[in-house]
Amino acid sequence: MVLGPAEARHLSVLRLAPGAAVVVFDGRGGEARATVAELDDTRAVLHLGEATQGAQETPQPLTLAASLLKGDKLAEVVRAATELGVARIQLVVPRRADAREIGAQKLLRLARVAQEASKQSRRAVIPEVLAPVALDALAWEGTLLVAQPGSAVRVTDAVDWTRPVTVLTGPEGGLTAEEVAALVARGAQAVTLGPRILRAETAPVALLGAIAALGQ
Amino acid sequence: MVLGPAEARHLSVLRLAPGAAVVVFDGRGGEARATVAELDDTRAVLHLGEATQGAQETPQPLTLAASLLKGDKLAEVVRAATELGVARIQLVVPRRADAREIGAQKLLRLARVAQEASKQSRRAVIPEVLAPVALDALAWEGTLLVAQPGSAVRVTDAVDWTRPVTVLTGPEGGLTAEEVAALVARGAQAVTLGPRILRAETAPVALLGAIAALGQ
Repeated sequence: MVLGPAEARHLSVLRLAPGAAVVVFDGRGGEARATVAELDDTRAVLHLGEATQGAQETPQPLTLAASLLKGDKLAEVVRAATELGVARIQLVVPRRADAREIGAQKLLRLARVAQEASKQSRRAVIPEVLAPVALDALAWEGTLLVAQPGSAVRVTDAVDWTRPVTVLTGPEGGLTAEEVAALVARGAQAVTLGPRILRAETAPVALLGAIAALGQ
Repeated sequence: MVLGPAEARHLSVLRLAPGAAVVVFDGRGGEARATVAELDDTRAVLHLGEATQGAQETPQPLTLAASLLKGDKLAEVVRAATELGVARIQLVVPRRADAREIGAQKLLRLARVAQEASKQSRRAVIPEVLAPVALDALAWEGTLLVAQPGSAVRVTDAVDWTRPVTVLTGPEGGLTAEEVAALVARGAQAVTLGPRILRAETAPVALLGAIAALGQ
């Protein structure tokens, strides 16, 4: 397997030399051991070894449905969500949206952030970042969790890893009570994140952290 | 009660006018209803009403023991930890520390970040930010939680709100196995945060999120 200049530089930065053992992955769950055979500034030649099973993925796909946020806040959310195991980030536009659309360049940048974060946390999967849909057009399989002040249900009791899990987080002003009620009517599960007000960029990390703390 | 120019401007930014109902707090847990009586650019006069009980505080004090990090990463950690309910942030220096000390100006800046974040999340308590201690000099009351890859214990089973809770998070390179073993020997509880590698600034938010998701 021959890698190009960007990956070759990455191996040099890690101070790897010919003979070093590495793990390579294809971003779709495939993973294998490999040995560095040649390495210079322009390319790296690897000898592929046995295929391995990544232990970093959740038992069923985990999706973050994240409301659009202003400025660079989504990049931080995508980065942390990737570390915390999401397979997909679906952008959504709720009623009190902080932004109603996202440029093609910015969407591409979020995809690159997911790719970098995936590599850094040694995951075999690069999360997809999907262009925004209106909140009432959001579709999900399995469980949809949404944090709601006043809910007494714990994440521990709501997540069932025999089915896919989606986590929805709101804009700076929060989802409206009507939006949450409509989602619950469609089968969503409202869960608690404690009695304090969280910023829109903190809530997804906290909620995905609570899921990661279940151990998978 | 008379407030100075900074607080008066804050009330103006919120588009409050004389007659508006507000909640004031003293940063040490005291909280009361109040009414805006006069408001201009230089001061605000409030009429104090009844004392209220803030519902935002954990049943026992929650402390984040955070390893020193490079650059501006600690500010983001302090901000999110404040939203997630900590009463105190104790900076610590582990063996593989990303930084061994913090300047007085920087420590003061972290205290200001805690103050702002406390106000924004409408907490009645401003978390203290305490100057760093060596990890082996870290003292705690109640439960000390430390995330450890491979632990099978869940936060849900480790937190007991009849006692104070402290959460310890490591530097970019992680705590060493010896450091975790020494803490466990002193009574710390190792818990899981899932099988993936988290950045040093993501781990505290994820772990405090898991605690907040217990509902208090």
